[in-house]
Amino acid sequence: MVDTEDNRKNANSPGPPPEEEVLDLKPEEEQVFLEVLLSGDKLRVRELIEELHPADAADMLEHLSPDDRAMVVNILRDNFDPDLLAELDETVRDHVVDVLGLEDLAAVIVELDSDDALEVLEELDEGEQKQVLDAIPAGDRTLIEEGLSYPEDSAGRLMQREVVTVPTFWNVGQTIDFLRHKTETEKAVMPGVFYDIFVVDPTHRPVGSIPLSRLLTTDRPVPVTDLMDAEMKVLPVSVDQEDVAFVFRQRDLVSAPVVDDGGRLIGIITIDDVVDVIHEEHEEDIMLLGGVKEDDLYEASLYTMRARFSWLVVNLATAILASVVIGLFDATLQQMVALAILMPIVASMGGNAGTQTLTVAVRALAMKELTPANASRVIGKELLVGCFNGILFAVLIGGVAWGWFGDPTLGVVIGLAMVVNMIVAGLAGTTIPLALDRFGIDPAVASGVFLTTITDVVGFFVFLGLAGLIMF
Amino acid sequence: MVDTEDNRKNANSPGPPPEEEVLDLKPEEEQVFLEVLLSGDKLRVRELIEELHPADAADMLEHLSPDDRAMVVNILRDNFDPDLLAELDETVRDHVVDVLGLEDLAAVIVELDSDDALEVLEELDEGEQKQVLDAIPAGDRTLIEEGLSYPEDSAGRLMQREVVTVPTFWNVGQTIDFLRHKTETEKAVMPGVFYDIFVVDPTHRPVGSIPLSRLLTTDRPVPVTDLMDAEMKVLPVSVDQEDVAFVFRQRDLVSAPVVDDGGRLIGIITIDDVVDVIHEEHEEDIMLLGGVKEDDLYEASLYTMRARFSWLVVNLATAILASVVIGLFDATLQQMVALAILMPIVASMGGNAGTQTLTVAVRALAMKELTPANASRVIGKELLVGCFNGILFAVLIGGVAWGWFGDPTLGVVIGLAMVVNMIVAGLAGTTIPLALDRFGIDPAVASGVFLTTITDVVGFFVFLGLAGLIMF
Repeated sequence: MVDTEDNRKNANSPGPPPEEEVLDLKPEEEQVFLEVLLSGDKLRVRELIEELHPADAADMLEHLSPDDRAMVVNILRDNFDPDLLAELDETVRDHVVDVLGLEDLAAVIVELDSDDALEVLEELDEGEQKQVLDAIPAGDRTLIEEGLSYPEDSAGRLMQREVVTVPTFWNVGQTIDFLRHKTETEKAVMPGVFYDIFVVDPTHRPVGSIPLSRLLTTDRPVPVTDLMDAEMKVLPVSVDQEDVAFVFRQRDLVSAPVVDDGGRLIGIITIDDVVDVIHEEHEEDIMLLGGVKEDDLYEASLYTMRARFSWLVVNLATAILASVVIGLFDATLQQMVALAILMPIVASMGGNAGTQTLTVAVRALAMKELTPANASRVIGKELLVGCFNGILFAVLIGGVAWGWFGDPTLGVVIGLAMVVNMIVAGLAGTTIPLALDRFGIDPAVASGVFLTTITDVVGFFVFLGLAGLIMF
Repeated sequence: MVDTEDNRKNANSPGPPPEEEVLDLKPEEEQVFLEVLLSGDKLRVRELIEELHPADAADMLEHLSPDDRAMVVNILRDNFDPDLLAELDETVRDHVVDVLGLEDLAAVIVELDSDDALEVLEELDEGEQKQVLDAIPAGDRTLIEEGLSYPEDSAGRLMQREVVTVPTFWNVGQTIDFLRHKTETEKAVMPGVFYDIFVVDPTHRPVGSIPLSRLLTTDRPVPVTDLMDAEMKVLPVSVDQEDVAFVFRQRDLVSAPVVDDGGRLIGIITIDDVVDVIHEEHEEDIMLLGGVKEDDLYEASLYTMRARFSWLVVNLATAILASVVIGLFDATLQQMVALAILMPIVASMGGNAGTQTLTVAVRALAMKELTPANASRVIGKELLVGCFNGILFAVLIGGVAWGWFGDPTLGVVIGLAMVVNMIVAGLAGTTIPLALDRFGIDPAVASGVFLTTITDVVGFFVFLGLAGLIMF
């Protein structure tokens, strides 16, 4: 079907949707929904939710206050959409599960794909899991229990068990006929949508993958072994989801086979689940860098307070450490109040320059772009950048200090301290994440607090120390 | 093909690859490559690169120093793999393009898909673009020129032009026959791999999409209109790539049609390009929050220095502002050196608590989870969290200050200042990103600097001001 000029000229209907309509849930709609909910018209509430795509309905539920949300869940209870549950944010899902209760939850879970069911269940505690599993038919239960036996965040938790496989001796025609004419049992183990089929040997080991578009564009007599990619990526069931995401991105995959310890095909991971993993991993990085353990937008205030408290305690300790360093120089400070006024500048500039370096290094480590092969070159570069920028800012702040307090020596002292702290910042910003990574600690977790401790301590110590040495 | 117990027990071959082999490029391999490169064995260098998947070869090139990289590019020049060029990081690609020269570049670009060619070309300046385009055959040139005419970061830049379409009056059998038996011209405009086919009306407007797996599992006589999803998402050509990524994630899409202003189908966007966009957008957020304009891991030192300098200048200005605030209280400071020692603690705790709130808010805005509908509830919650944690830390630091300097009034002063600054931090951490977003500014850009300016100024002002009022 190739375009002809004629076709194109025929166009006279309304055109594409306006850009804002690409995104579905609009603030006005949420406003209308809230009003209907307040009016108590349960039937209309149910209608409004059911008109939405499950992903949008999930967004709507997320934006509600906990009380309003419980009200909506109770209205939807008799006929709760399983896909809505799968689409919810983790915190909100916990809340919805609480409101639903374990019995109604079991009824909803039965209707989910094995990977989605697993995602909901893994958040429950063991007693609750058992209660829900007991209410689920044996077949589904076994699959879910197997899934729960794999380590958290592993390929085994991500995969779906429904896979389309063909033996090595089939051809295109046999494959298509098999797909068209399945028994009811076969239909039950077929995935809803799939993108590749896998060729397996008699021991059920995957030997090749065939994208559906290739199958569809090939004549019936061609053997599947002539069509398949034998160099496909095979994922062991226990591999970490972060590595799964890396491989999918590196190879532009839409699905990949998962194998057990014996190398046998036991499931596939599809791109939609990987996209969610990519988002999760990014979120984790961004939250940890910001000093938050996890996204707590939908958490209750008390939970949020406690979660953030522990991080702030660490920061209090490091801030007190910095104050102890300042305290070493109380005699010097007493002699000249200008030092107290200027000292936060050196520490702050070091902290900011170090954070810039740190951000690039943490991200590069996560993307596997910073490796032992180029680590020394990256550190060398950051030292150079710190040195250059240190000299520039030394001149700037030296001039400001001289002008402000009319004392050229004060300008020299703050300038020297600035150069030292900016170089230290460049060094610490690269070596701290590298060292944490070497010890198997996620560099995003603790890099920031180490860094600012170092730049604060060095900043105050060098500035006040030099002042004591040179000025008095 | 359902597993039988027999099959499973037959297993006796080596099993799955060990986990570390899931990722391809290993440090040892890079070391070997570097040694071969140093030995000057050009033939072996070429062999080693050609053995790698283009994505891994790209990683290898990225990790090399610029001089080594230029050497490798010159060795590969006669037979440069177009896919390797497409896989490279932007900064490294610029460098490789420089080394290749425009003439050799044109030869490589001709072999790329239209969307990849566009990605390489959009980074060149206009003069260079023209030179390369002139060296490319007319057909490809027109497609690329059209692509360049769409706004940067729009759906038009992301899409590939090669789409499979069928008319509304066809059935499954006709569609499969069409896919199998194409003329050479038709083959040229077929995508390499595809996941959905699109049903179009006579004016070439998309009316529905059919996943290939559904086409394959349906009998030949079924009309395509019975199979298609009529409620598919249609993307206008000028919609922003961030919104494209949002829709793909929300709807678990693998491909989506792009339409022009007349609503006619002109291309499709596939999930692999969307995954790259998701990474780009995340990278942008994380970098901006860290005070870096863009990922500069592979940039030269001088460029990096200049790029980071401008951000540090802003920070210098805000640090000086904070110092001016401290300067207002020089008489107070002169009376009691303990104030100078303790004052950074209040500012630092406010900065850290504010950054926690800010991180959650910026992320929630990017994910469209923070909306006008729940903004006031989120602000209220952050005020509450700030107030609670403020009181806790007031008690902690008040005790420390009393114990350290033996002055209970000093403890009360720093405690009060802590409560005020933590509440201000919670307020500023939510309202700053919301306000920037309202004015159409990416909240990740400037939120951090505004926040720490506020928490520094308030921290110093309230602590020293209260000390002056209460203690002297």
